[in-house]
Amino acid sequence: MLKVVKIGGNVVDNPEKLDRFLRDFSTLVGPKILVHGGGKVATTLSKALGIETQMIGGRRVTDEETLRVVTMVYAGLVNKTIVNKLQALGTNAFGLCGTDGGFILSDKRAATPVDYGYVGDPRSVNTKLADTLTGAGLTLVVAPITQDVQGGLLNTNADTVAQTVAVAMASAARSEDEDVELIYCFEKRGVLLDVDDDNSVIAEITPDRFAELRAAGVVADGMLPKLENAFKAIGRGVARVVICSADAIAEPGYGGTTLKA
Amino acid sequence: MLKVVKIGGNVVDNPEKLDRFLRDFSTLVGPKILVHGGGKVATTLSKALGIETQMIGGRRVTDEETLRVVTMVYAGLVNKTIVNKLQALGTNAFGLCGTDGGFILSDKRAATPVDYGYVGDPRSVNTKLADTLTGAGLTLVVAPITQDVQGGLLNTNADTVAQTVAVAMASAARSEDEDVELIYCFEKRGVLLDVDDDNSVIAEITPDRFAELRAAGVVADGMLPKLENAFKAIGRGVARVVICSADAIAEPGYGGTTLKA
Repeated sequence: MLKVVKIGGNVVDNPEKLDRFLRDFSTLVGPKILVHGGGKVATTLSKALGIETQMIGGRRVTDEETLRVVTMVYAGLVNKTIVNKLQALGTNAFGLCGTDGGFILSDKRAATPVDYGYVGDPRSVNTKLADTLTGAGLTLVVAPITQDVQGGLLNTNADTVAQTVAVAMASAARSEDEDVELIYCFEKRGVLLDVDDDNSVIAEITPDRFAELRAAGVVADGMLPKLENAFKAIGRGVARVVICSADAIAEPGYGGTTLKA
Repeated sequence: MLKVVKIGGNVVDNPEKLDRFLRDFSTLVGPKILVHGGGKVATTLSKALGIETQMIGGRRVTDEETLRVVTMVYAGLVNKTIVNKLQALGTNAFGLCGTDGGFILSDKRAATPVDYGYVGDPRSVNTKLADTLTGAGLTLVVAPITQDVQGGLLNTNADTVAQTVAVAMASAARSEDEDVELIYCFEKRGVLLDVDDDNSVIAEITPDRFAELRAAGVVADGMLPKLENAFKAIGRGVARVVICSADAIAEPGYGGTTLKA
């Protein structure tokens, strides 16, 4: 079972949280791919460099200068810091972004109706490369910068990168040993039956149960698209998707919610 | 024959020079490893961030903040820009630094008599990793950030990284097919018989010829340690070392000076 784990900026930005997560992550057995988001360093750096962050509809526009900053921060500082910490923990980590070995090719998002600049939507994953690397015992650490099929680099949503890699690896799997599990770490412990009670994590959700929870209004707002996306990944071959907290990655079932077909 | 090519900041800093070099480099056949220096971006970025660059005896001190900057710039921006440009040229490039897969382990330089901070001297190279990657048809692009054997990252001289990698790969070679050629690109076309005449490149230098040239004062100043180092690499198994201009890498014999045993 290949584990594709995604951590967000909230973990990357907090050294203690990151160290704890990496310590736990390093104890997980079997082939692993860690996809990381960027965190606030890119924003801080942009400010320090006097680059104005342009937002449209709450989304950041990646202009040429911002692309340089996110490439530095995500594929350089954050990626190598994580790899180095994992190495110190005895995990043979190896960092890459989407342009390395043509790992993830993307299409630049159309400039209409809104031009978000150098932002990409993944088109394909070089699963053979990933197989070669994981086959050599390497734990991949992936920065969310991808390769424009037209040339150039593109800033890419880390959730989408994780999902794309998981689906591609599942499609390329030749046996059950190569099944893929996609694990999203986020702020909550999982999908909560009661949003105010962190101990009300729903351990397992099937499509039928999802329909019930949605009808009952238990799953709503930001969680709705998250779960819809997760079930899409399952529909495309991923064995299961887990939504959990970065703090609970070493617990049984990652202490979170498992989505299954 | 594996080619280990080193380019310096003068190439990295000049987009036209870099594009020309990469176009030529991509035409070289056989397995290749490109080691790049940093260039001025790190200095510019440090200034913009208000990080004071401390120099001792003409050498930069790498404090904690500077280490973050060089990691960003060398392993992030410069490395991924080069990889991406090579990909667009049809070369299946793959970027890494010394911590990825534990590629290059270094010892932090002693703090006495002068404390240069987070600076490393390479101790060992994971040649098996390099073999796996080049064997998969990947052209490696190496940023001069290495892994401290005690944990952490270290800023490392790119010339030294290139030489260490070349010597290690030569030591691990099992046949003549795996001979290693080390190519240093620098400002001049090679070792010049007349320092004022760019067309006076000496095509080949053996140890005997080196002794003559040194006695005659033809090789002096900065070129002397460069050639001494080159002959050290040859003494340790590298088949030949070439000193040439980045502009001439596609010419026969790289238009430069070849040092041989």
